[in-house]
Amino acid sequence: MLKDSRSLHAPELIRLIEALSKVQGLGPKSARRAALQLLKKRDTLMRPLGDAILSAADKVKTCNICGNLDTSDPCTICTNETRDEGILCVIADVNDLWAFERAGGFRGKYYVLGGLLSALDGVGPNDLGIPKLISRIEQGQIKEVVLALAATVDGLSTSHYLAEVLASKNIKVTRLSHGLPIGGELDNIDEGTLLLALKSRLAV
Amino acid sequence: MLKDSRSLHAPELIRLIEALSKVQGLGPKSARRAALQLLKKRDTLMRPLGDAILSAADKVKTCNICGNLDTSDPCTICTNETRDEGILCVIADVNDLWAFERAGGFRGKYYVLGGLLSALDGVGPNDLGIPKLISRIEQGQIKEVVLALAATVDGLSTSHYLAEVLASKNIKVTRLSHGLPIGGELDNIDEGTLLLALKSRLAV
Repeated sequence: MLKDSRSLHAPELIRLIEALSKVQGLGPKSARRAALQLLKKRDTLMRPLGDAILSAADKVKTCNICGNLDTSDPCTICTNETRDEGILCVIADVNDLWAFERAGGFRGKYYVLGGLLSALDGVGPNDLGIPKLISRIEQGQIKEVVLALAATVDGLSTSHYLAEVLASKNIKVTRLSHGLPIGGELDNIDEGTLLLALKSRLAV
Repeated sequence: MLKDSRSLHAPELIRLIEALSKVQGLGPKSARRAALQLLKKRDTLMRPLGDAILSAADKVKTCNICGNLDTSDPCTICTNETRDEGILCVIADVNDLWAFERAGGFRGKYYVLGGLLSALDGVGPNDLGIPKLISRIEQGQIKEVVLALAATVDGLSTSHYLAEVLASKNIKVTRLSHGLPIGGELDNIDEGTLLLALKSRLAV
């Protein structure tokens, strides 16, 4: 990438392409295409994007209570009194919170761990917000904790760890159900999920 | 996308995600992921990207001679006196120029059409820089025009049109060769290219 873009001569272009290529989802080639697209749409796309990035960098904060990203701290979900304080949904990252909010239907509060336990990457309980989660639970308002973590090795072991830690706290601990996704065709589902869905079959 | 991101509440976040989702190569989902990644790396990635975008929007210009993007107009290629004025490489877009410069080896000048003729999209000779290209050729310095356009329907018909227009100009008009890409395996090449490569086979 460095060598490639140096031959373009203009330092502003090099800087633009290199910065774009570090954005998740873009590589060196798509960064060059994106740079070209932006330069063709300077007023309708490029300047608004630059402004949006700098303004969000200044104004978006991490909520000190739940870890959500918002312009206010505490965030609008934490300060929303119509939401149920008694049910806490524990998620790995802010995009999981966004996914629940898009889906709608959950009216409790959230707690963003900021990652998952991972022996391989050396992520332990203190790297995530687990001590803070426990002290929040110990304040006594929460009746149920929903462990809404991915059904991956790290997600399942983090769920398992949290379930053990929370076992002594006299609250209900639940996890998301596993099974067939809505609209999922049987022959597109992996065997593990299919067998699990069979094992956890329900009477109709 | 609009409905989705409105539920996130913070207008700066909505604006960021919507602007990112318009960047070529990113969609609504990858824009949300990119926004999250940027917000996690505010000083190392997010602010430098915002600055790079705004600074490039202000400083990068389109070269009035060839259509290249550069901070100077005429661009560094057009003003480079060590490059051969006699050979002009006609390309559809600036990323094709970048591709040639990365490949190295071409020491002539360029002319960026800014697109390809397309009956379907209603792009005619005057929408591209073709009249300007012809007046540049009529200045008499150019001995050879290389039509370096894509081997697609629009690319081939633009090449054909230009070859006809330039036939009367007393200059050599060439095009890129077609055939097997270097490193290309025979069974990965489409049948059309394979037959063409056979038809244009060379003695060894």
